Amino acid sequence: DVREKIVHMNVVDIAQLFEELDHQKLIIVFRILPKEIASGVFSYIPNELQKFIIEYITDKEIKNILDELFFDDTIDFLEEMPSNIVKKVIKNTDEETRKLINQFLNYPEDSAGSIMTIEFVDLKKEMSVRQAIQHIKETGVDKETINTCYVIDNKRKLEGVISIRKLILSEDSIILKDIMERDVVYINTYDDQEKIASLFKKYDFLSMPVVDQECRLVGIVTIDDIIDIIDQENTEDFQKMAAIQPSEKEYLKTSSLVLAKHRIIWLLILMISATITGRIIRKYDNVLQSVLVLTSFIPMLMDTGGNAGSQSSALIIRGLALGDINLKDVLKVLWKEIKVGFLVGLVLSSVNFIRLFCFEKTELLISVTVTITLFFTVLFAKVVGGILPIMAKKLRIDPAIMASPLITTIVDAVVLIIYFSIATWLLGI
Amino acid sequence: DVREKIVHMNVVDIAQLFEELDHQKLIIVFRILPKEIASGVFSYIPNELQKFIIEYITDKEIKNILDELFFDDTIDFLEEMPSNIVKKVIKNTDEETRKLINQFLNYPEDSAGSIMTIEFVDLKKEMSVRQAIQHIKETGVDKETINTCYVIDNKRKLEGVISIRKLILSEDSIILKDIMERDVVYINTYDDQEKIASLFKKYDFLSMPVVDQECRLVGIVTIDDIIDIIDQENTEDFQKMAAIQPSEKEYLKTSSLVLAKHRIIWLLILMISATITGRIIRKYDNVLQSVLVLTSFIPMLMDTGGNAGSQSSALIIRGLALGDINLKDVLKVLWKEIKVGFLVGLVLSSVNFIRLFCFEKTELLISVTVTITLFFTVLFAKVVGGILPIMAKKLRIDPAIMASPLITTIVDAVVLIIYFSIATWLLGI
Ligand SMILES: [Mg+2]
Ligand SMILES: [Mg+2]
Ligand SMILES: [Mg+2]
Ligand SMILES: [Mg+2]
Ligand SMILES: [Mg+2]
Ligand SMILES: [Mg+2]
Ligand SMILES: [Mg+2]
Ligand SMILES: [Mg+2]
Ligand SMILES: [Mg+2]
Ligand SMILES: [Mg+2]
Ligand SMILES: [Mg+2]
Ligand SMILES: [Mg+2]
Ligand SMILES: [Mg+2]
Repeated sequence: DVREKIVHMNVVDIAQLFEELDHQKLIIVFRILPKEIASGVFSYIPNELQKFIIEYITDKEIKNILDELFFDDTIDFLEEMPSNIVKKVIKNTDEETRKLINQFLNYPEDSAGSIMTIEFVDLKKEMSVRQAIQHIKETGVDKETINTCYVIDNKRKLEGVISIRKLILSEDSIILKDIMERDVVYINTYDDQEKIASLFKKYDFLSMPVVDQECRLVGIVTIDDIIDIIDQENTEDFQKMAAIQPSEKEYLKTSSLVLAKHRIIWLLILMISATITGRIIRKYDNVLQSVLVLTSFIPMLMDTGGNAGSQSSALIIRGLALGDINLKDVLKVLWKEIKVGFLVGLVLSSVNFIRLFCFEKTELLISVTVTITLFFTVLFAKVVGGILPIMAKKLRIDPAIMASPLITTIVDAVVLIIYFSIATWLLGI
Repeated sequence: DVREKIVHMNVVDIAQLFEELDHQKLIIVFRILPKEIASGVFSYIPNELQKFIIEYITDKEIKNILDELFFDDTIDFLEEMPSNIVKKVIKNTDEETRKLINQFLNYPEDSAGSIMTIEFVDLKKEMSVRQAIQHIKETGVDKETINTCYVIDNKRKLEGVISIRKLILSEDSIILKDIMERDVVYINTYDDQEKIASLFKKYDFLSMPVVDQECRLVGIVTIDDIIDIIDQENTEDFQKMAAIQPSEKEYLKTSSLVLAKHRIIWLLILMISATITGRIIRKYDNVLQSVLVLTSFIPMLMDTGGNAGSQSSALIIRGLALGDINLKDVLKVLWKEIKVGFLVGLVLSSVNFIRLFCFEKTELLISVTVTITLFFTVLFAKVVGGILPIMAKKLRIDPAIMASPLITTIVDAVVLIIYFSIATWLLGI
């Protein structure tokens, strides 16, 4: 009854239900599921639940799950398990699978090798469409996808690609080599996932073939996993741009101690760097001593500079990540940011002058000092915000580091120097 | 010769080549392309080139392109064209298409209606697998995808969904109603694209059916377009979090004037808000007058507070966007941020005290003032950064607004108040 109801649900929904069940019930329900559904659900539940289930179920049940699980999901799951669980799982596989698992676990974390799966349809170019479809009917049930099929030679070298659509819409007697796509876009096992994601975006693929050093087809990467990677890479950028050490773990599932650890390092670095602003202020304390009111404009100047710079750096970091901006565009960006900085600086400093001089009746020379400082601050911030991410990329540093926190710290110091220099000069201190 | 070479390229690569050709050559090459390829390329080139081509080619050629173009790409293209181009295009369509185009152009910009396409495979539940495949062979060539097929009744109501995989792997004589998925996840024409994207992510779909108010199937949304939307929504968040008015146009293709316009509003708002910090400083100028050195710690305190708050808000904004954090988690977040704020505050203020008192030989009471201020600043910033995005969402404001720039401005004011209060009290001014 419960079984009947659950069996007709989407595996993703069953997985979600599992997160709400208590552990005892979860095991009971898991055990009554047919094995294809059980393994589908298994691939969608959080690691803690996977671990709990593996600890509870029998070797026979583990074998059943492994049989049905797609290989990439097996690897994803094993990557997150402690070694006793990995051992328990591996002892339920045959020699060949064990070797394959070890090989896949050794691919670098963000490489094609670690995200690809091995269940793809391979065809021969001499096959007719009829034979190809027959082959798919016979072997397709175990494949992660049949939507795109791969044509390989006897040495497993990738020769072409053909979609199920093309097969279905072609005459039965046509030979694959006459209709397959030969201009195949493929990736290597050691390619980075960010590069792979951008190829998927560019070509609108549903899957991509992965080849080894000898150009042999060893796996495929599918779009559903790429979508997770896109989210992951974006989250990484959001975190780096906010001066947090990146982590893939969900906020609510991360302990306060770990959260604190991921935040403290950059805060310390930035705090220590900010002491330079203190030095600058102390160096010019005669200026403040004579005209104390100058102090009251420091926060506004620093914040506006920081915001102006962060705007530029955010746009450039994003443009670099999406591939809209390249290293060779550095002069274009520089010129654009000079123009934007000029325009924005002009508007902001005009508004500021009117506010200070006309509305708040600030002394003319002080108003002028603040206004000129604001203009150059904005101009400088825009240029620095625009250029630093590109320079970082050139130096093979992640451009996402060059975001608001760092830009703000740099701009702050420069703002103070500009401010005090102009004040010294204009007010004759 | 050139034609032969180009015809075997991927349409995406041809489109990229077009961006590098000069306009005269581009038209020549475009005209020699077979019409399926021409329309494929057309859907991948930038709007400026689309406009240029439509202005140049004949009505007959326009008709050919339109025939082959998928409907969602037609709409995407028309949405970006000036009215004279839209007119030129529409006059080359039949009455029915014209009505459909007008209907689709009227869907709200970010709705399912504006991203769906109408070329899907529809089947009847009484069909056998053999009949279904035959139907696909006859009609599939014009469909955007045949990977997922939709089962509808005589009134076009959506009854089920079946993948081409299931069809190929099933016996010819089986009737669709016995194997189709009945638990269909669908979307409505007016659903927001962000919601649609999260359904695609959750269920790993390749396409989703879109139904109208009467539950009739009116279109499908495909994963390739969803990937573009994910990028778009993320870009929007990056922009909003950097206090920029969001724009979908690429940075390098946007004029400096437009870039400046998108940045100036928030900079003005934040600049004016920052004047409150000036008021606070002027209110306490007796404190600074007596102990001028206090000024030199203001930038460090403000920056650290801003950074600490931005870290929290970035994590919460991202968690809300990915659906990992919900409105009901507000107390969990509050408690977590209090704990993290406490830990981070403790470490930062300890390091700061050691630096000030032991290394820089700052007076004890001043060191203590700065240290205590730093601790409460971090604690306050963490709480505000954690809570504001959730409150914004509750008020149906985009949480992405509650990022670094705004948090910094709020924290700045509070830092100063804490600082001067503690200074007044401890230093007895
Ligand atoms: Mg993996
Ligand atoms: Mg794309
Ligand atoms: Mg997978
Ligand atoms: Mg997956
Ligand atoms: Mg990465
Ligand atoms: Mg990255
Ligand atoms: Mg600041
Ligand atoms: Mg559209
Ligand atoms: Mg997914
Ligand atoms: Mg489309
Ligand atoms: Mg598209
Ligand atoms: Mg949106
Ligand atoms: Mg959004």
